[in-house]
Amino acid sequence: MGRKIIFVGVGLVMGKKIPFKLLISREEALNLILKHVKPVERKEKVGIEELVGRVLAEDVQANISVPSFDRAAMDGYAVRAEDTYEATSTKPKILRLVGVSTVGKPVKRRLEKNECIQVATGSPIPPGADAVVMLEFTEKMGETVYVFKPVYPGANISPMGEDIKKGETILRDGDLLTPAKVGVLAALGRREAYVYEKPKIAIVPTGTEVKEPGSILEEGQIYDVNSYTLISVLSQNGCKPVRFPPIPDVFDELDKFVKNLVNYDMVVFSGGSSVGEQDLLEKVVKKSGEILFHGVQIKPGKPTLFGLIDGKPVFGMPGYPTSCLSNAYLLLVPAVRKMARLPPKPKQVVKAKISQRIVLGSGREQFLTVKIQDGKAIPVFKESGTITSMTEADGYIILPVNLDVLEKGEEVEVTLLE
Amino acid sequence: MGRKIIFVGVGLVMGKKIPFKLLISREEALNLILKHVKPVERKEKVGIEELVGRVLAEDVQANISVPSFDRAAMDGYAVRAEDTYEATSTKPKILRLVGVSTVGKPVKRRLEKNECIQVATGSPIPPGADAVVMLEFTEKMGETVYVFKPVYPGANISPMGEDIKKGETILRDGDLLTPAKVGVLAALGRREAYVYEKPKIAIVPTGTEVKEPGSILEEGQIYDVNSYTLISVLSQNGCKPVRFPPIPDVFDELDKFVKNLVNYDMVVFSGGSSVGEQDLLEKVVKKSGEILFHGVQIKPGKPTLFGLIDGKPVFGMPGYPTSCLSNAYLLLVPAVRKMARLPPKPKQVVKAKISQRIVLGSGREQFLTVKIQDGKAIPVFKESGTITSMTEADGYIILPVNLDVLEKGEEVEVTLLE
Repeated sequence: MGRKIIFVGVGLVMGKKIPFKLLISREEALNLILKHVKPVERKEKVGIEELVGRVLAEDVQANISVPSFDRAAMDGYAVRAEDTYEATSTKPKILRLVGVSTVGKPVKRRLEKNECIQVATGSPIPPGADAVVMLEFTEKMGETVYVFKPVYPGANISPMGEDIKKGETILRDGDLLTPAKVGVLAALGRREAYVYEKPKIAIVPTGTEVKEPGSILEEGQIYDVNSYTLISVLSQNGCKPVRFPPIPDVFDELDKFVKNLVNYDMVVFSGGSSVGEQDLLEKVVKKSGEILFHGVQIKPGKPTLFGLIDGKPVFGMPGYPTSCLSNAYLLLVPAVRKMARLPPKPKQVVKAKISQRIVLGSGREQFLTVKIQDGKAIPVFKESGTITSMTEADGYIILPVNLDVLEKGEEVEVTLLE
Repeated sequence: MGRKIIFVGVGLVMGKKIPFKLLISREEALNLILKHVKPVERKEKVGIEELVGRVLAEDVQANISVPSFDRAAMDGYAVRAEDTYEATSTKPKILRLVGVSTVGKPVKRRLEKNECIQVATGSPIPPGADAVVMLEFTEKMGETVYVFKPVYPGANISPMGEDIKKGETILRDGDLLTPAKVGVLAALGRREAYVYEKPKIAIVPTGTEVKEPGSILEEGQIYDVNSYTLISVLSQNGCKPVRFPPIPDVFDELDKFVKNLVNYDMVVFSGGSSVGEQDLLEKVVKKSGEILFHGVQIKPGKPTLFGLIDGKPVFGMPGYPTSCLSNAYLLLVPAVRKMARLPPKPKQVVKAKISQRIVLGSGREQFLTVKIQDGKAIPVFKESGTITSMTEADGYIILPVNLDVLEKGEEVEVTLLE
């Protein structure tokens, strides 16, 4: 064994056994992913009660004005403004009450000089009236109304089309339907709208040792965790995840599987992407498509693979629960949100002081889960195999690849997990 | 008309026609609401694929350890650590390969001196072995393995129970099920869990003029907007909203309705709570229960009512779409999240400079919708009747009751809308 072994960086050996030929940075990985992920084009009609959070797939032109008539913006009396100009709190103007305009029964009669008509908020303004005096500034005695304050023309009236003008394009293709935008559709009388379909994502656990929850474990076996964390993350990010039963680490089985993905917009494997599993997934993807990267410069989460089969994105997520979930947040979520046409997820970032000295130097970016307590960020990361590294975390810190030591008390930015 | 009218504050007249006897501050209103809203007690069993975002209604004790066996944390060779102590990169230790432990087929044979067994990440560690040498630091030639680096006992092994110890209470009643917590349930082999039911909220539009979307409007009529904005907001906040068709502003109809609410945890009326509608809802609630407040010191949104019927919370939201929706965010969301046992909604706040001078002095707090552009907060509020005041907004500012003028360029805190 006279062979010379040269260590480059940490954990990466130049020689025969390079585990990942080329680790790419998280940023490069994300750029590659986003370059190859296409927004879903399929549309579906959805009822108004289910529209919130969906992405509109049509331009919405107002077919009516809202309001569709001039209406009172206040409770009071519809008047001709000029009849009130001399009113004061001690010398009121005296008007004659000639009717009541209600939402159910609008008054059609034209208002004449020194007349008024009682209105409630929302009532149609009768012809001839051009203002509303608020109830508070009046006093009614039988058919007589005393007005204690002048109003200008237009006062307390919501003119027709104030909110939405007929013909106006009020919502656009691609709009995320917030509660207020759903309200606009309702205001126009819409009962449904076209939205983009949610991307259908196949979730595929791999590994001979991976068993269905509910089954009995034999030695060496574990329950499938990644499918359920992935389903959870994807359903929170506008997707329709569909889970498959675990596939053993056998080339032919995986190969057969990837030939049947025509109904899905994306496939996410978990497990099967680290060296010990003989790069099976890489071989399978290479056979039917292309690998865009395999190995990301982040810890945990290195053995992540991304490729295309028939132009369809294929993710190979690490088998370890924490690595799988952290890369789901960092790489998968941006991908599926683009696919679902959703804006990037808003980040909740808080500053905190790290509670202990951390020595790095893995040659990779580090994703470190922390708990926040009294303004301190306390690392809770145990090991990338442990799902509890994530459950106990309030958020995570990303430590740059070239950081050597983080001293106790240094300020860090914690991205909160939901 | 010699009667003296005294103005107190703005818009509030002391005398016969006080529109709301007592406006309470938003803070007081919120405290009263939260005091009277009770978390839902009913539980339901939900399948693991639907658990994310739900609130756990049981303590979860680990019925197994995770992992349930000592396993390799790296690809490499299981060894007795002491056999490697003298290895160097130029003088490797020589071990004899006596088997392969895979997840499917664990090795039962005890490891003897200077033996090793090949393992992949996740493989069970064979008896006698106490460490794993990473693949990168080895070289295999037939049955011989060269080890170029020593390992300490325990190195690269995830011991049984490292993640979760059998018997440990790993999740608790009241926990919000994040993707990671769903993962913990999966790791324990759970297929379902008990969670608290979503609060069932009756959404009831009132007003003779309010019509169903899809119907034909006559003069003076408008489509029901508030039901759909409320349904949207409530379904985004852990509730199950159920909408009723509009009820006309008629005492008997409302009175009959409130007697039939036994299946709902809360009732939210919209419209029917301003003076013009003769305080109908207030009368209806008073007859069967009690009013806790009617009138909030906020603009828009003053005519908001809160009461109890048979201990059940009843909201009367303003009829105007913006007022209804803004108070839904400010008052209703905290209420229903408490009911659903969800933590307070995280607020996304950004700082911006107000783009124009704003003169206040309504005697109420002001909820002002703004658009954010180039670090400037540009008011987009039109009028409380206009739903588009909300659709064009990125967020809102709350201006305090005692603020007179906000000068152009002053910094404001904008709470982002989703």
